[in-house]
Amino acid sequence: MTKAEVKALKGDQRTQEAIHPHSPVVAFGADKPLRLDSGTSLSPFQIAYQSYGELNAEKSNAILICHALTGDQHVANTHPITGKPGWWSNLVGPGRPIDTDRFFVLCANVIGGCMGSTGPASINPETGKPYALDLPVITIADMVRAQAMLVDHFGIDQLFAVVGGSMGGMQVLQWASSYPDRVFTAVALATGARHSSQNIAFHEVGRQAVMADPDWQHGRYIEAGTMPRKGLSVARMAAHVTYLSQAALHRKFGRNLQDRQNVTFGFDADFQIESYLRHQGITFVDRFDANSYLYMTRAMDYFDLAFDHNERLADAFAGTKTRFCIASFSSDWLFPTAENRAVVHALNAAGASVSFVEVQTDRGHDAFLLDEPVMFSAIEGFIHSAARARGIALP
Amino acid sequence: MTKAEVKALKGDQRTQEAIHPHSPVVAFGADKPLRLDSGTSLSPFQIAYQSYGELNAEKSNAILICHALTGDQHVANTHPITGKPGWWSNLVGPGRPIDTDRFFVLCANVIGGCMGSTGPASINPETGKPYALDLPVITIADMVRAQAMLVDHFGIDQLFAVVGGSMGGMQVLQWASSYPDRVFTAVALATGARHSSQNIAFHEVGRQAVMADPDWQHGRYIEAGTMPRKGLSVARMAAHVTYLSQAALHRKFGRNLQDRQNVTFGFDADFQIESYLRHQGITFVDRFDANSYLYMTRAMDYFDLAFDHNERLADAFAGTKTRFCIASFSSDWLFPTAENRAVVHALNAAGASVSFVEVQTDRGHDAFLLDEPVMFSAIEGFIHSAARARGIALP
Repeated sequence: MTKAEVKALKGDQRTQEAIHPHSPVVAFGADKPLRLDSGTSLSPFQIAYQSYGELNAEKSNAILICHALTGDQHVANTHPITGKPGWWSNLVGPGRPIDTDRFFVLCANVIGGCMGSTGPASINPETGKPYALDLPVITIADMVRAQAMLVDHFGIDQLFAVVGGSMGGMQVLQWASSYPDRVFTAVALATGARHSSQNIAFHEVGRQAVMADPDWQHGRYIEAGTMPRKGLSVARMAAHVTYLSQAALHRKFGRNLQDRQNVTFGFDADFQIESYLRHQGITFVDRFDANSYLYMTRAMDYFDLAFDHNERLADAFAGTKTRFCIASFSSDWLFPTAENRAVVHALNAAGASVSFVEVQTDRGHDAFLLDEPVMFSAIEGFIHSAARARGIALP
Repeated sequence: MTKAEVKALKGDQRTQEAIHPHSPVVAFGADKPLRLDSGTSLSPFQIAYQSYGELNAEKSNAILICHALTGDQHVANTHPITGKPGWWSNLVGPGRPIDTDRFFVLCANVIGGCMGSTGPASINPETGKPYALDLPVITIADMVRAQAMLVDHFGIDQLFAVVGGSMGGMQVLQWASSYPDRVFTAVALATGARHSSQNIAFHEVGRQAVMADPDWQHGRYIEAGTMPRKGLSVARMAAHVTYLSQAALHRKFGRNLQDRQNVTFGFDADFQIESYLRHQGITFVDRFDANSYLYMTRAMDYFDLAFDHNERLADAFAGTKTRFCIASFSSDWLFPTAENRAVVHALNAAGASVSFVEVQTDRGHDAFLLDEPVMFSAIEGFIHSAARARGIALP
């Protein structure tokens, strides 16, 4: 987006654009409520986002990135809290597979999140207090509906691509289903058209861990001046195990002891995997809101694209012209290849154009966030080919 | 065991036999301390057990059952707390594959447990208060050393069989390694010679869940009059997911909603899998001690039979004459077939007699506790054949 465009947007009276401590924000007023699947609506609400590159004159080169459960809009810039590189800075950037010298890349913090978009930690205008659990439950379709309003705000009719993995991949599929004419290409990684029973089970364990923490205060921890750090940390630890593969854990940690000479015969972290997990739990708490974790996991659990189409997934994509790229990872047991392939089969049945690749890796579900050359070249090749079809100039 | 023998045992001055509220107990006095792997010893200590059938005159028909992580000695009788049938009453009983009309079947609550054997809830004679975390860490080898003392107490030189699954299977392997001359046959199900990194990770999540509960009171909850119910419940929920397979969960629950007409769009248990898991957590807390859960999981984590034999597992069974039966379950991802097969390969390398079967089932790790006809007939056939070799009269 050019500076002039930002300025023009700021003159828009219906919505407001401001700079959140970390990100630009678009605030939608009472005239633009967000309609929710639960039957209610959210108003006012705001969306925090990051963008990279320039939107071309035809507004035909926009790529929307959808983030995963604990991700956020900081795709390719230094994270303002952790100080670490953006979560997909290996994939998105100048000269990267998603090349910000060619494309205008946009990523919004999802509704229900905790990095500037309206979520359970936001102030409920009706009470003047944080929403906590008074925020309506958010679904994947709700997140996507809010993103569509942000895309409208930028005056973009059709996105060149929507890209995401895991919960981000669910949003990609939802985008393609809800707004088939607005998505030229869709890239969904390590995901599925619904959340499995086992995945719901692991999420429920995490939620119960958060809610078991007395510092959760029935969700009202902000007012109480507490934070369910321990509960959220346990939830993160449990989830983190599911993001890795048995093989990756074995390769990284095996049964390696922290100190071979001094096994404690106690409950300290004797094994490296233990201290690694504890570290994952502790650092997560510093950057994530506990109630947002409840809302994000719930959104994934409710996701079931076929459910709204008489259990026929193909009908969710009926008549689509979108070009799809689906990728799975061989050692991902959270969204195994079979779940990804079910999406491919439905797309085939719907007569869609679809590329599919199963990336051979032992790094589990988290592989979609890592340097995976086969994934990178698949995405790059797919994007280039689609860009030619769309008539976007490439080097 | 005949009544006369019980009476004779009661006259033994060195140890005491009493009736625990639920089970007979053998108490070992100061002259018989239990030597522990941690370098310390435990004294006095006691073992609660159940027995079924009669020990023959030659004392050659004794079968020791080893229980799993959250199991106990109530193998084939109504459980005194839950009122449910014994956990292996489908396998053990009159006319069952392990036939109590033919064999004297013994099962002891493990050291560190909470059903009558000395554990963290027992009184520390030095302080007059419960041990809590002052109980030394218990290993699988420690459990087996205590069981050997119980077997001595019964005057049994050689067990006809040692049988167990999961943590029980670890004890079976440890028995065969520590006391090769005292184990005629060994039946180990759904187990491994060491705990994998992923399994340690899941256990660590459970321990952190318990210890995150303020009612845990740094382990001193008995004196504080509290119980870390929520933390232990979360730990059980997390573990329970790992006991089932993706396929079993899908078959039992799918994405079934509790009430199709009224999705709450909230954090109640909308999905059947959620209410099932919550039930598992809540009921577990009524029958299990939180600190025992820490000790049992730790014992499994430390287990690594090869470690004490220069990383050569075969050396753990060098020169063994024991006949082994190893069984795995195709959908068990906690102790996958590969882990069981590694034991078989080591036994082969040690020149041992070994039968192996992979039971085809979609019921996951828990299959070893369920009606699995292939497992039952494998065990029955193996036991019959071994009984003939041992010269025990069978019908």
